Amino acid sequence: MTIRTRLTEFFEIEHPIILAPMTPAAGGALASAVADAGGLGLLGGGYADRQWYETESSLITNERVGCGFIAWAVEADLDLFDRALAERPSAMMLSFSDPAKLAARVRQAGVPLICMIHTLEHARRAIDVGADVLIVQGTEAGGHGLVARSTMPFVPAVVDLVAKISPSVIVVAAGGIADGRGLAASLMLGADGVLMGTRFWATRESLIHPAAKDKVVAASGDETIRTSVYDIVRQKAWPAGYTGRLLKNGFIDKWHGREEELRTLHSEELSKVEAAWASGDYDTANVTVGEAVGLINDLPSAKDIVRRTVREASERLGVYAFDQRIAS
Amino acid sequence: MTIRTRLTEFFEIEHPIILAPMTPAAGGALASAVADAGGLGLLGGGYADRQWYETESSLITNERVGCGFIAWAVEADLDLFDRALAERPSAMMLSFSDPAKLAARVRQAGVPLICMIHTLEHARRAIDVGADVLIVQGTEAGGHGLVARSTMPFVPAVVDLVAKISPSVIVVAAGGIADGRGLAASLMLGADGVLMGTRFWATRESLIHPAAKDKVVAASGDETIRTSVYDIVRQKAWPAGYTGRLLKNGFIDKWHGREEELRTLHSEELSKVEAAWASGDYDTANVTVGEAVGLINDLPSAKDIVRRTVREASERLGVYAFDQRIAS
Ligand SMILES: Cc1cc2nc3c(=O)[nH]c(=O)nc-3n(C[C@H](O)[C@H](O)[C@H](O)COP(=O)(O)O)c2cc1C
Ligand SMILES: Cc1cc2nc3c(=O)[nH]c(=O)nc-3n(C[C@H](O)[C@H](O)[C@H](O)COP(=O)(O)O)c2cc1C
Repeated sequence: MTIRTRLTEFFEIEHPIILAPMTPAAGGALASAVADAGGLGLLGGGYADRQWYETESSLITNERVGCGFIAWAVEADLDLFDRALAERPSAMMLSFSDPAKLAARVRQAGVPLICMIHTLEHARRAIDVGADVLIVQGTEAGGHGLVARSTMPFVPAVVDLVAKISPSVIVVAAGGIADGRGLAASLMLGADGVLMGTRFWATRESLIHPAAKDKVVAASGDETIRTSVYDIVRQKAWPAGYTGRLLKNGFIDKWHGREEELRTLHSEELSKVEAAWASGDYDTANVTVGEAVGLINDLPSAKDIVRRTVREASERLGVYAFDQRIAS
Repeated sequence: MTIRTRLTEFFEIEHPIILAPMTPAAGGALASAVADAGGLGLLGGGYADRQWYETESSLITNERVGCGFIAWAVEADLDLFDRALAERPSAMMLSFSDPAKLAARVRQAGVPLICMIHTLEHARRAIDVGADVLIVQGTEAGGHGLVARSTMPFVPAVVDLVAKISPSVIVVAAGGIADGRGLAASLMLGADGVLMGTRFWATRESLIHPAAKDKVVAASGDETIRTSVYDIVRQKAWPAGYTGRLLKNGFIDKWHGREEELRTLHSEELSKVEAAWASGDYDTANVTVGEAVGLINDLPSAKDIVRRTVREASERLGVYAFDQRIAS
């Protein structure tokens, strides 16, 4: 039961599955569990919180773990970035702003570079700065992104672009993928593998409050929305156009569409959100997940997710040893 | 080179491909060409324009052609609707509002009922009123729709719902599918086939001005947007939430975000749009297509599209006789 692709060959991993570097779900335990299961685990370096990074990176128990940062955020702490690179992660992933400046450091460190992209323009840019892997993220994804492209038409468009201008670059589908059906579909679209966020968020190892996980198990995929309300409250300086996809709740119902007013009240509302985090009140606190919640009905281990995703994809592909090069 | 699914069995067609009932691209010639090629052709009844319907239905040359209407629009002309049913189309497709009222007439006429859906709630409703086929439309689709779900995560969620509550209902993926990769991916997601709009729009037979088709061949998938500006100008009473996906142009640049102002100027702007239709000026007139434009580089015949889509999907699926029941 093996699905071999350029992604598995490049990272010398068993399965073409990457754990998204989710803030704060993807800590050392989750990243290591995905690596143990034969995928590529990425630690969620996110906004470059030093304390979080130190604690969680010390919990990594598998060498095949990489790291991801929000590019515009880690640019404010190049020390931390260089330290992360010095630990020789399996890969460094950059997301959500121009990767040029940081990419140079990654290449100099000899670490494989993964770039998230949201448009064909981003794809060209990432290739220019030396990306080894493109994460092609559709707007159905959980967490931050653009209202620009959806996974189904975006992936083959990037595959065509890469074939034309830089055929060795590896293409990974992300956004709305939560099971073997999504993995098999992504391979059919020409991707070399998948990156999953929401699905790994809803596992035993993820650093998320149990009350939030229970909400996700109960939710349907109709119930997510892209919004900036939590970014405003937390005063995160996201570049224009970037919003987060989350599960709708009372806080979003109240503030989405009233962003200007919220800006003036942010500190008061932040206290409420922080209290809600502590108490597990996810009608006020954020539940950051994508449309893939509609495919999630349980909270297994990360290893179970990797195994069943590969098994289901293999069955659907109708083969037990699927070599992608045969199909392309 | 046959892909047999429940969709091909139900309609006794050769390939699991449906032509979207596009207004005004899908006239009698295009619908017949898709049917001749072994797919299911649907005439684009759209807003229920009697003259268009009469002209185009008279051009149908293949018995395996059905029809589609915008549900809320044809409710204003039940005479036309009943006449269309009396011609015993292969199927009647209803889109963009509650199908209950019209569904009863379709069932009474003994015509297979296809319903477009945009949420799981829509899916339940369509099943309740007796739909034989669900068109699961993601927000990347060309033409009207909701900002609700994307094809990749939406299709398997509907497949799961159908399996649970009404297993005989057929599930068809739509939105962002333009080639064999999209067809193969849709089958992996559990769909019984695909409905394609944008791809068939860009064919020789489609009733679209050559200047608009040339713009689409040149466009990338990054250049589409959901907007209401043309609906405002044309005073079409779309239900809340429904917008159209189109290629960005000067008209949209000018008016998107200034909808209230446009409402007051609609008749003046309509004259400009009408003049632009006549002259082939698609910087002012609408080019109604989806993200799939990023996968379109030519303007072949509809028959070529059906053939190459099936051939490419078969190759990707790695089999020449793919029986979907083996995979599920
Ligand atoms: C809770 C959460 C936090 C995320 N945080 C980050 C992040 O810090 N950096 C990043 O590159 N991507 C982040 N993402 C996006 C993922 O990298 C990925 O693109 C996305 O989860 C894929 O879509 P899916 O959720 O449908 O699997 C996050 C996603 C989620 C759900
Ligand atoms: C030009 C155009 C006109 C359309 N008109 C209709 C219509 O009148 N009725 C309808 O049910 N769907 C209509 N659609 C939507 C299609 O049924 C279909 O859902 C969509 O085209 C699928 O996405 P795709 O364009 O990416 O293939 C239209 C689509 C386009 C591109």
